[in-house]
Amino acid sequence: MRKEMFNHEINILRDTYRRLLRRQAKTNLIKLNKKTHPADLATVFRYFTDEEQIEIFSLMNETEHTAEFLSELDDALVNDLLSKETLERIAAIIERAPTNDQSDILNALEQEKALAVLELLEVEEQEEIAEIMGYPEDSAGTLMNTEVFTLHEEITAGDAIKTLQDQEDAEMVFYLYITDDDDRLVGVISLRALTTTPSKTTLKDIMIKNVHSVRPETDQEEVARIVAQYNFLAVPVIDPDSHLLGIVTVDDVVDVIREEATEDFLQMAGAGKDREILLKSSWENAKTRLPWLFASWIGGI
Amino acid sequence: MRKEMFNHEINILRDTYRRLLRRQAKTNLIKLNKKTHPADLATVFRYFTDEEQIEIFSLMNETEHTAEFLSELDDALVNDLLSKETLERIAAIIERAPTNDQSDILNALEQEKALAVLELLEVEEQEEIAEIMGYPEDSAGTLMNTEVFTLHEEITAGDAIKTLQDQEDAEMVFYLYITDDDDRLVGVISLRALTTTPSKTTLKDIMIKNVHSVRPETDQEEVARIVAQYNFLAVPVIDPDSHLLGIVTVDDVVDVIREEATEDFLQMAGAGKDREILLKSSWENAKTRLPWLFASWIGGI
Repeated sequence: MRKEMFNHEINILRDTYRRLLRRQAKTNLIKLNKKTHPADLATVFRYFTDEEQIEIFSLMNETEHTAEFLSELDDALVNDLLSKETLERIAAIIERAPTNDQSDILNALEQEKALAVLELLEVEEQEEIAEIMGYPEDSAGTLMNTEVFTLHEEITAGDAIKTLQDQEDAEMVFYLYITDDDDRLVGVISLRALTTTPSKTTLKDIMIKNVHSVRPETDQEEVARIVAQYNFLAVPVIDPDSHLLGIVTVDDVVDVIREEATEDFLQMAGAGKDREILLKSSWENAKTRLPWLFASWIGGI
Repeated sequence: MRKEMFNHEINILRDTYRRLLRRQAKTNLIKLNKKTHPADLATVFRYFTDEEQIEIFSLMNETEHTAEFLSELDDALVNDLLSKETLERIAAIIERAPTNDQSDILNALEQEKALAVLELLEVEEQEEIAEIMGYPEDSAGTLMNTEVFTLHEEITAGDAIKTLQDQEDAEMVFYLYITDDDDRLVGVISLRALTTTPSKTTLKDIMIKNVHSVRPETDQEEVARIVAQYNFLAVPVIDPDSHLLGIVTVDDVVDVIREEATEDFLQMAGAGKDREILLKSSWENAKTRLPWLFASWIGGI
């Protein structure tokens, strides 16, 4: 039943795309690309032929939406798509993505191509990406978002709200991380607590001082465990001097849990950790992205 | 390595409890109960004998903390613990829990005892619990939190923040759900968007109108899929007339994904859906709560 419902929605989207492709209705395809959620677009993409994929992708703008779509797509498909693209177009798209997605997309490319794209980016951006790519695979460092919102412990709740209103970049803000004179992470405040505090109160007086944090080397399973155990929405990543490097958010943790579950299944099925060999057909692909559907399917054999 | 780290922390907590129990240091035990996170308390509890469990539980207050601890505990343990308790104490604890946890705890009891406890609660609360317990097992209805924060579409952002400041009850607020004159769900605003909007703007003008919602009968796997696919922090549950019944939050979805993964493992291992048979020893228990550890353990055989 569930499965059918999901397939039903995706089937409608797929058929709409196919109809527009047949009619070569480019204006409508561009509209549909913009209107479709990046995650849905990534799901439906697996149903298309190589030619259809390239045609649809060529009609997408170099926007954040396209960057998000690529980060939702499986590595093998990203590599296929981008291998036919100019370095300039790839760089233009990557520029719009958050740092952790940037390294994901670059990791999917062949090394030579990835380095060539990297060279087209601004020096500051290159350094940030290089840092993230330097962390061990499947660690908090590769998972974290480096655009974090921090405030000094001595400012007031009222000023904090004003500062927040000027910050357009930092996405997914639920917690405000508080730092001291030495830029060390000393506390955390939920956005809700900030909203409901009298505006003259100093952040120091309302912050929670015992902050659960991880190090960039911490394995993503450990990060997932902490987030799941304590119902956190995000966990901060700090260096040995307690400087805040980034945060891992719950939406990425959800992906980790699903991914780990799949890996463990494949291991049990004797396929080893190398998921790529199973990512040949679009069907297998869909299953890897949906471990619980995959699970009931295997269970039913 | 990860496993050791986790065990290490839990071992320290367990040894501290054991030392205090041996010394019959009740004041210290009460302090430790209060200081320990409910999720950690539930984990460490599985290491204790029946007698130790009863002694520790007898020193816990009838607070929200204790209610949360019970909701984190496995059903078999909840039943064991509460079978020796008076109906009045159980009712006093249950009163402090959110509705979905209330039905979880009652579901763990034997039916006769659950009904007797239910009768001690206020009529309004009885009705709410009865409604939740009426939804199908593993559905959005049994998973949802009914304490939701709604606002009328015609009020301003400034007034919305003021109203929010008076609401102490509604936990985990990330989204504000917006209703029309007929009390129908017509939009949603993130807390962040509200904070960063000029205070005279009407909610109608900043709300997102296309709200993804589910019905109380929707299976929890479908809810998990929606939350994971779109990176939501919560998904609203509505009735056929679009009235908001509650929300399912991402922390509960994380639990669902882990639980489903475990169920699928057990099914593959030939144990069927009946997890309870595997919940006899505290070790098995711990593994059921931590599917990925369980998975690597099975994988290693």
